[in-house]
Amino acid sequence: MKRIYFFYFATLLLISPAVVAQKADIKRVNPTNWWVGMKNPNVQLLVYGPNAGTLTYTVDYPGVKLVKTHKVENSNYAFLDLTIAASARPGTLRLVGKSGSQTLTQPFVLKDRNREPKGQGVTAADFIYMAMPDRFANGDESNDKFADMADPNADRSNPYYRHGGDLAGVGQRIDYLKDLGATAIWLTPVLENNQPLTNEGGAMRSAYHGYGFTDHYAVDKRMGGNEAYKTFVRKAHAAGLKVVQDAVYNHVGINHWFLKDMPMKSWLHQWPSYTNTSYKYQPVTDPHGAESDRRVTLDGWFVPHLPDLNQTNPFLANFLIQHALWTVEEFGIDAWRIDTYMYNDQPFMNRCNAALLDEYPRIHIFGESWVNNVVDQSYYTRNNINFPFKSNQPGGLDFVVYSAMLDALKQKFTWDDGVNRFYQALAQDAVYADPNKLVTFLDNHDTDRYLSVIGEDLDKYKIGLTWLLTTRGIPSMYYGTEILMKNFKDPSDAEVRLDFPGGFPGDKQNKFEAAGRTDRENNAFLFIRKLATYRRENPVLHTGKLMQFLPQEGTYVYFRYDGSKTVMVATNTGDKEILLDTARFSERMGGFKSARNVLTDAAVGELKTIKLPAKTAVVLELQK
Amino acid sequence: MKRIYFFYFATLLLISPAVVAQKADIKRVNPTNWWVGMKNPNVQLLVYGPNAGTLTYTVDYPGVKLVKTHKVENSNYAFLDLTIAASARPGTLRLVGKSGSQTLTQPFVLKDRNREPKGQGVTAADFIYMAMPDRFANGDESNDKFADMADPNADRSNPYYRHGGDLAGVGQRIDYLKDLGATAIWLTPVLENNQPLTNEGGAMRSAYHGYGFTDHYAVDKRMGGNEAYKTFVRKAHAAGLKVVQDAVYNHVGINHWFLKDMPMKSWLHQWPSYTNTSYKYQPVTDPHGAESDRRVTLDGWFVPHLPDLNQTNPFLANFLIQHALWTVEEFGIDAWRIDTYMYNDQPFMNRCNAALLDEYPRIHIFGESWVNNVVDQSYYTRNNINFPFKSNQPGGLDFVVYSAMLDALKQKFTWDDGVNRFYQALAQDAVYADPNKLVTFLDNHDTDRYLSVIGEDLDKYKIGLTWLLTTRGIPSMYYGTEILMKNFKDPSDAEVRLDFPGGFPGDKQNKFEAAGRTDRENNAFLFIRKLATYRRENPVLHTGKLMQFLPQEGTYVYFRYDGSKTVMVATNTGDKEILLDTARFSERMGGFKSARNVLTDAAVGELKTIKLPAKTAVVLELQK
Repeated sequence: MKRIYFFYFATLLLISPAVVAQKADIKRVNPTNWWVGMKNPNVQLLVYGPNAGTLTYTVDYPGVKLVKTHKVENSNYAFLDLTIAASARPGTLRLVGKSGSQTLTQPFVLKDRNREPKGQGVTAADFIYMAMPDRFANGDESNDKFADMADPNADRSNPYYRHGGDLAGVGQRIDYLKDLGATAIWLTPVLENNQPLTNEGGAMRSAYHGYGFTDHYAVDKRMGGNEAYKTFVRKAHAAGLKVVQDAVYNHVGINHWFLKDMPMKSWLHQWPSYTNTSYKYQPVTDPHGAESDRRVTLDGWFVPHLPDLNQTNPFLANFLIQHALWTVEEFGIDAWRIDTYMYNDQPFMNRCNAALLDEYPRIHIFGESWVNNVVDQSYYTRNNINFPFKSNQPGGLDFVVYSAMLDALKQKFTWDDGVNRFYQALAQDAVYADPNKLVTFLDNHDTDRYLSVIGEDLDKYKIGLTWLLTTRGIPSMYYGTEILMKNFKDPSDAEVRLDFPGGFPGDKQNKFEAAGRTDRENNAFLFIRKLATYRRENPVLHTGKLMQFLPQEGTYVYFRYDGSKTVMVATNTGDKEILLDTARFSERMGGFKSARNVLTDAAVGELKTIKLPAKTAVVLELQK
Repeated sequence: MKRIYFFYFATLLLISPAVVAQKADIKRVNPTNWWVGMKNPNVQLLVYGPNAGTLTYTVDYPGVKLVKTHKVENSNYAFLDLTIAASARPGTLRLVGKSGSQTLTQPFVLKDRNREPKGQGVTAADFIYMAMPDRFANGDESNDKFADMADPNADRSNPYYRHGGDLAGVGQRIDYLKDLGATAIWLTPVLENNQPLTNEGGAMRSAYHGYGFTDHYAVDKRMGGNEAYKTFVRKAHAAGLKVVQDAVYNHVGINHWFLKDMPMKSWLHQWPSYTNTSYKYQPVTDPHGAESDRRVTLDGWFVPHLPDLNQTNPFLANFLIQHALWTVEEFGIDAWRIDTYMYNDQPFMNRCNAALLDEYPRIHIFGESWVNNVVDQSYYTRNNINFPFKSNQPGGLDFVVYSAMLDALKQKFTWDDGVNRFYQALAQDAVYADPNKLVTFLDNHDTDRYLSVIGEDLDKYKIGLTWLLTTRGIPSMYYGTEILMKNFKDPSDAEVRLDFPGGFPGDKQNKFEAAGRTDRENNAFLFIRKLATYRRENPVLHTGKLMQFLPQEGTYVYFRYDGSKTVMVATNTGDKEILLDTARFSERMGGFKSARNVLTDAAVGELKTIKLPAKTAVVLELQK
């Protein structure tokens, strides 16, 4: 199922014995800037350059104090603890480093915090559109490839290479996304991935997916760089759309600059010989689990070209946490999707989440923990189980409901199978502090595409999307679902990451426009638009309670309701029309006499029975 | 999957308008006696007879006070609240009932509490043998059938009829059970089931299974009656075996005496038309569940001939709770298996459990809640989930591990299947307050028999039984497993409830003795005896910690360990021999140089590798 690579990341640690005073230089400071007026007055600067750790540092700036300078194993690094008083003013401070007769000064900018939207969060009022920018739209052909990068290629004819999509391209489709009904955009990571082509299973692949950072403080220039990201976020916000950052704490790209000359050996999880994670989550939560199994899961590397960061190292932990804060403040990010969440050190994740939430109380955080049961899933979010470790993550991606919705559409209805699966998954929501904060989905960049999984059946397609857009949780949808993009992952992930037709110069079809779509594609698009628009405008689908009834004969009925509205969702997953007797649902239907069919706008004159054609989901707004 | 019966239990309520004083009589008092010196000084007597509710009651006995007399809808009942002071002496008190010129006196015995063992509990130190007495052994042919009972038949040639087994029969096999290694006996219910033959799916069936009580205070005379039960328990205790009572609170038999003339309408769950339970457990724990679904699950009838008791009725609740206490005190019961636990009113179950535990702090209680996931299973026992309702049940039958062990033996080993299922089930033990208090099993009287499920494969049979007898929990085994009894439930339960050969007069074979068993049967018997005996003698398998390692290539390894011993269980579920490299298990194997094979008594000279033939489980006691 998962490939094991036989490649070991050699220890890069270099300890420079500081016997003789050597000429020092400062090449990098991370974070690259900071702000006055942050709630947390502390920031730890990583200062890097030849012998940068041999200098004695001072800071002379009103309201800023250098509390401590940490020297570490590698004398090319210094870590400076600053405190910034509430009284400090924006400006450029100078770090002064001295060693013998040498004096270095390094400017460091303290910005004023701007008033632009940031940390707005995503909630169940949102509908997140997830796109992979390299494969979505190319808005700037001048940044497709760079000869000075580790992978200088861009080639749309090769599924494994970069295709040239970028932030400008996504930015040009914001109106399209808004029209579709999306309220938030989640892009796979945009940070610099200056990674070489890697040989995976015999095929050379680029790092177009973005999950191997090589510089935390630079958006990849093939995406457009930092300024393009700011422009994109500003444009999204102007259109009323929120932006979700896809973050990776567990690992970095093997070409990350700090791996060429690591601060200390414990910066990474290093093993006597290359050790891959087992990808097994049970050892983390198992009260009977072995520590050795736990270590392989958590500290084993995800793949050989993504070295595993050691978040118990306090300097690394600060580096990652500050980068998160910096990103929200600098770019105006609204929510945080966290890659490979379950492989991280969980106490570190709690510190990181707390730092974000302290500074941006409305921000939402939802990590990827690919598990098959609610007990393990709840472990990684705020939950109602007295685990020895308690997560403070507000949300999470709902892999359990994902599997359950697909099973509901793929399986024949039996005692426990078919739509019972979906019902049963939600019926275990007691484990979560707030299941409405989980992000639901039908597929993503790592899975078979939804349409293919359900046999390219447009009826089933509409049922699943109806569930996604009307049940509890924060719905997200993978790009292209609305134009019926399909495929299985076999032979590779690239099959489910095809270019969005019309997003790239020279495309013969433009499926961003109705005229470029087939009738069937427009049918799908309009269906989603209709339902997403209704969802956007009706708080009952955001904060209304959910009540679900036991599935019977392949039917599944639930209600969203609050003080002002009641919406009934009645599904028939079977192959035969069913005349649904509604007497069983009187708890929620009492007092209602008629309804409006949300998808067709048709009036429904009486509610004693509801005709459910084969394979349909009906959404009714009940009326007195 | 479940049959629905179209039969409605008519309302039996009779309200006698007490306009004219009518002659009264007392026919029954329940409990039939009580004790002095109980921790709880209160007891509520149900007094039944024509116009018994019209009388004015008094009690004149030192230390006993009649606190209140309750009159209810049906004037044939009175409920009398007595308190019995610590100073009260054993003896016979007289209830005096007066109405006009009529005076009735009813003797009621207050016994002294005896010193015989009772409420000893079962723990993970035990190995429970579960038998269905009608099908296990007939020790007294004179009680096989009675012409005055609703079902006067006994016929071994008919699988659905009573076969004549009884308590005397079980009593005669106590030495056999002790020799096998059992430490506790769980019999399916022995209380009077004076039920008629019922037509189920076209076949006439008797109530030989025992789950339809018709008089709580009488052991069925076909089992031998109350005295036979006392004799049986005393004999079991003398042999060092504990006795588990199989209790039913959810329902009674349709022929129960109190249903002929119910105290009040709310004694039962009554429906406008016959309503069967849905057998679905999700509505109980689902935070999104509908109250109507919950009511059908809980208050719907299990089958038409087992009316559903309303435990929110305080008189009925007292009746049931006092019967539980009475049973332990009268017969010397050690533990309590509770039928259809999840269908009961859970606040009532907590009260009932608390009453038993207050009086008998070591008693164990384990209910039957047939669910498919640990969240629902944990709901019915002491757990670590902050459910709105918190169960106080100390144990429970472990249906999740049951399914998982069978999957582990039936399925091919894949990423999540095969032996991963068993591993994964235990890996979710964090939900339970103490998973070692759950009762594990491989089959029972309601399931296909274990040997048939695993394709009659003796190698697999030994693997599963090795797990059962060495993993966490309290193992139980269904009668006949040790002599390779087999069968699927199809076409009926009777297929898995065949007579134990040798238990009945005229049996040609006697499998209670080695000479009556085939070589293969003796092989199985001796295997269980060997392992159960080792288990009985080694506390490390009772209270030792469990550590399990990730399954790999169809192997599954775990350890039980404490300060003095470490036992390694290494399983190969695959079809090929595996040379197991033990380096991965150093956490538990460090310091150990050799081992003794518990099953063969062979010495194992070195532990770096362990040869695991196809389909084997090896149990090694490690040695320094």
